[in-house]
Amino acid sequence: MTEPLRLGIAGLGTVGVGVVRIIRRQAELLEARTGRPVVITAVSARDATKDRGVSLSSYAWETDPVALAKRDDIDVFVELMGGHEGAAKEATEAALAAGKDVVTANKALLAIHGQALAEQAEAAGRVIRFEAAVAGGIPVIKSLTEGLAGNEITRVMGVMNGTCNYILTRMEHSGLPYETVFKEADDLGYLEADPTLDVGGIDAGHKLALLAAIAFGTKPAFDDVQLEGIQRIAIEDIRHAADMGFRIKLLGVAQTSARGLEQRMAPCLVPANSPLGQLEGGTNMVVIEGDAVDQIVLRGPGAGEGPTASAVLGDICDIARGLRIATFGQPAATLQEAPSAMSGLPAPYYLRMALQDKPGALAKVAAALGDAGVSIDRMRQYGHSETIAPVLIVTHKCTSAMLDDALAGLAATGVVDGAPVALRIEEL
Amino acid sequence: MTEPLRLGIAGLGTVGVGVVRIIRRQAELLEARTGRPVVITAVSARDATKDRGVSLSSYAWETDPVALAKRDDIDVFVELMGGHEGAAKEATEAALAAGKDVVTANKALLAIHGQALAEQAEAAGRVIRFEAAVAGGIPVIKSLTEGLAGNEITRVMGVMNGTCNYILTRMEHSGLPYETVFKEADDLGYLEADPTLDVGGIDAGHKLALLAAIAFGTKPAFDDVQLEGIQRIAIEDIRHAADMGFRIKLLGVAQTSARGLEQRMAPCLVPANSPLGQLEGGTNMVVIEGDAVDQIVLRGPGAGEGPTASAVLGDICDIARGLRIATFGQPAATLQEAPSAMSGLPAPYYLRMALQDKPGALAKVAAALGDAGVSIDRMRQYGHSETIAPVLIVTHKCTSAMLDDALAGLAATGVVDGAPVALRIEEL
Repeated sequence: MTEPLRLGIAGLGTVGVGVVRIIRRQAELLEARTGRPVVITAVSARDATKDRGVSLSSYAWETDPVALAKRDDIDVFVELMGGHEGAAKEATEAALAAGKDVVTANKALLAIHGQALAEQAEAAGRVIRFEAAVAGGIPVIKSLTEGLAGNEITRVMGVMNGTCNYILTRMEHSGLPYETVFKEADDLGYLEADPTLDVGGIDAGHKLALLAAIAFGTKPAFDDVQLEGIQRIAIEDIRHAADMGFRIKLLGVAQTSARGLEQRMAPCLVPANSPLGQLEGGTNMVVIEGDAVDQIVLRGPGAGEGPTASAVLGDICDIARGLRIATFGQPAATLQEAPSAMSGLPAPYYLRMALQDKPGALAKVAAALGDAGVSIDRMRQYGHSETIAPVLIVTHKCTSAMLDDALAGLAATGVVDGAPVALRIEEL
Repeated sequence: MTEPLRLGIAGLGTVGVGVVRIIRRQAELLEARTGRPVVITAVSARDATKDRGVSLSSYAWETDPVALAKRDDIDVFVELMGGHEGAAKEATEAALAAGKDVVTANKALLAIHGQALAEQAEAAGRVIRFEAAVAGGIPVIKSLTEGLAGNEITRVMGVMNGTCNYILTRMEHSGLPYETVFKEADDLGYLEADPTLDVGGIDAGHKLALLAAIAFGTKPAFDDVQLEGIQRIAIEDIRHAADMGFRIKLLGVAQTSARGLEQRMAPCLVPANSPLGQLEGGTNMVVIEGDAVDQIVLRGPGAGEGPTASAVLGDICDIARGLRIATFGQPAATLQEAPSAMSGLPAPYYLRMALQDKPGALAKVAAALGDAGVSIDRMRQYGHSETIAPVLIVTHKCTSAMLDDALAGLAATGVVDGAPVALRIEEL
């Protein structure tokens, strides 16, 4: 197989330019490894005149990514535009319809439309590869789909949004409040155009939905991910967690039980000395647990030009080498529809609430928890000069259903201002 | 492709039995993922009567692994016997000659005969897969060969012998001397029949040679690995390292420079708060650095029935799925012969020596180091009641050539008993 593999690249932002750079710089290495030249035939982006710091003059230019996707002179459509509707979806479908393989970094597209796209790809005898969609440069899709294929996967966990981890670790080290660090991150260009994608946990939730589909042989079901962002994490939460030997991470957890598939992406307390607890800044980490392998931990850069382009190239090299596999590791038609389940495993919870400074208020809180069967491990009330007292509580282990009862009970006391912050403590 | 994939398994020790168990327990899962049944046709081991805790009665039994390798009713020869000569080598060659694919956990065989076997496999149109040979359950071969194929690899490092890491961390936590902990490990069955394979760094050196071949496109060259074991590490080395914020790990490092390929497997000091420094017990860790991805860290169990069988099954599933790749990631004929190079990068070194308690002895040591251009960062002489004083020195950065000069100079002083312990300090 010495015919060149011809790429059409749609989207010339950071990642697209990174892919072009690697293909130009490492042409010889890529050919040595894959046994054939890997070449770019055509590219597509909105603005053809913009200087992107890399020469594009030898590639055909398409303004319309759909036109690029259909070109006769490409074998692989590399979709690096992003977005789960519009041009990215249309062009991906057009590429598959035209008999092209697809390599994409688009987590939203696959988390939402993955099942339909996988079915279309398989009907057309084409592959969709998406290593770059999850945890940047970490080869986690490949490790899970192929390397650990002999395992019944029992749990997948991960810190997969570098921006959130940057904000949380920066808050901890600087002592600055969320709003200030959020603004810093925005000024540094770390946030998506719609920052809710990051800090609301949506981006990480997309990634978790993709990992869960592969891990458990289920249809990707982003709508079933229980999502919670980091927007309500206050500096006192981080300090209190640290006092107890924990750190707060936006952690995704996917696991199955008799009741169904549990997928949650929410800030949690994790032991500070665990691999997940030690994670700093924009680094990502994925933990995979299987019946045979026990536990594998994968760590690496979750974003950025080089790491994301590395993942895109991994997929391109696989296609060049003739390594072809079903989108989610097994035929799309065999993926199961799993009912969405809440976690049945009891865990301790961390609660922070704003208590009105009235006689008997704390007794009402304690009673509300007790009525829900939730017992208190530790409680701390901070000094205050206002009429509202911040109260921190760590519960003994309880189920999420018991916790929901307790939260409803707290709301009914009339002495708690707003909804408490409630974070699960993952003992890992 | 719905024909079953038929396996012949040679070697029914811990790993072999683990593979049989998974194939029996997860038959349905493996078929769902690979699209075809994965079945065992025949097995081979020395003693057919031994109770291995798993039913083998439905498989044909071959006393001779070569006969197993040649059977018409197997597609894949699974070699789990070990040893780089004799039956394992003969049977692997016979399997390839008979047109079988090979899956093996045999690091010694491939580190020493990998080039010839890869050439034989490619001539026969067959594959040799060996995920289980390196770092147990961690899918590091796959990550490096496929996932990171778009990278020019700049460095590969790893703690890849769980027994050595167990001994070193156990010494640290218990305060017990090497000899005592070595005996404990032996009593627990952690050591190879020839313990030098573990504590002499040979087993880990085999693994490093395999990673280096893939990373740098070179012929596997175990003979060029600079090997040093952990046998001379004393409890005071561990304590002194800890005082300075380091831990001692048997660390493999492979990197290339203009002068050639550097492969060293030796005890080193690494920062206690680095991922490598935090590794406890039998866990393995591999760090891969590439021009695009920056740094990926992979961590997991380095041995044991489940994890090693998981890796074997990963390879088997790849073959069942039709994912076929050259042994070391590119055609064997294109692998380069790289000259062996010593590290040219300066590093600080830790030295421990037994100094004769004579007037002017320490001055002679200092002069010997100074003459070699090696300057002293810190020195500590322990209290002693004998005529020999233990002296610990940390040097400023120097090259390994300068260190060798210094060691020769120390030997010539006539005041140092025996050869000093000299450990590189890796700042990572």
